[in-house]
Amino acid sequence: MSLREVPSGAIGLLIQELSRLPGIGPKSAERIAHHLLNGDRNQALALAGALRSAVETVRACSICHNWTEDEVCSICRDSRRDASLLCVVETPKDLASFERAATFRGRYHVLGGKLAPLDDVGPDELEINSLINRVRGGGVRELILATSPTLEGDGTALFIANMLAMTEVRITRLARGIPSGSSLDYVNSQMLTDALEGRRSI
Amino acid sequence: MSLREVPSGAIGLLIQELSRLPGIGPKSAERIAHHLLNGDRNQALALAGALRSAVETVRACSICHNWTEDEVCSICRDSRRDASLLCVVETPKDLASFERAATFRGRYHVLGGKLAPLDDVGPDELEINSLINRVRGGGVRELILATSPTLEGDGTALFIANMLAMTEVRITRLARGIPSGSSLDYVNSQMLTDALEGRRSI
Ligand SMILES: [Zn+2]
Ligand SMILES: [Zn+2]
Repeated sequence: MSLREVPSGAIGLLIQELSRLPGIGPKSAERIAHHLLNGDRNQALALAGALRSAVETVRACSICHNWTEDEVCSICRDSRRDASLLCVVETPKDLASFERAATFRGRYHVLGGKLAPLDDVGPDELEINSLINRVRGGGVRELILATSPTLEGDGTALFIANMLAMTEVRITRLARGIPSGSSLDYVNSQMLTDALEGRRSI
Repeated sequence: MSLREVPSGAIGLLIQELSRLPGIGPKSAERIAHHLLNGDRNQALALAGALRSAVETVRACSICHNWTEDEVCSICRDSRRDASLLCVVETPKDLASFERAATFRGRYHVLGGKLAPLDDVGPDELEINSLINRVRGGGVRELILATSPTLEGDGTALFIANMLAMTEVRITRLARGIPSGSSLDYVNSQMLTDALEGRRSI
């Protein structure tokens, strides 16, 4: 864009901030800014308030590092959830996906990412030590390493498994295979390899 | 989504407000919310500030009804721009598109929408009277009716043209035809009809 194309002043600033959001290009940012100024401006104020409120109140649970507005999140406080079963995820967003699926009744540990040596993300940048301490504290029967099914996610899972090799805790990894409901036409060879290796009797 | 799927608290509220924005579905809203909480939280505060600032400072220019932070917008104040040539647009966003194209050197009048009888948008809901008064005030040589090339946009243009039929002002409409750079394969029959009717000698 040339300089001329960037609106100045408060509208320009709003478009600029909106276009920094993931998945929002300059065109969408412009459309959103005009929508917010055109219609009921209370919508813009409500969004501004929600942003401030989230920034000020949302922090990491002191046990699992999920997002919460309290010292300890509602999942860690829920005595009906199996504390002996920990699902280890990369992000609070992954945790939210599990909660939406509503089939897991254990608890979580959020790493805050995955090991990525090339991006200088080592074990100290993640909640790995707190996970090890949590497991060594006792009461954990199984650790489900639900990091992403990628090279880095696998590396992170392997690193954690190695650190806990001396414990009695069962360590598992999510199954890989063909996405439910997909057509074999759209499945790549890695998925097929995973599906073959993980095949089960019926 | 079931009730269970909506996160509660400050994050839930943020996702809810984000998903009310045009073009942002629940999935994008969740992604954006997590991005804002994950990274540099000053980004979220900057966006909140830009929203508040725009809501508080942006208002309609008292002459052309374009958005401005002053009583009169910078275009209406710019003496280098031809005040005898008015481009009538529906929204400030349309005006911004013309400014980006940077070929129009006259001034504008923003209607604030188009006539839509079925949605109860009549002449009094738009800046039509102020346009008529502006033209009758003198000094305008030509009015370019740049409302959208749709039934309602055409209706709005016709309504304005009729109201000014007794004046000496030249009234024009934007040309219609084939979008520059497009392939004839992708052009519909209305575009072809417009292009034929508007054909010119070369
Ligand atoms: Zn927790
Ligand atoms: Zn103006």
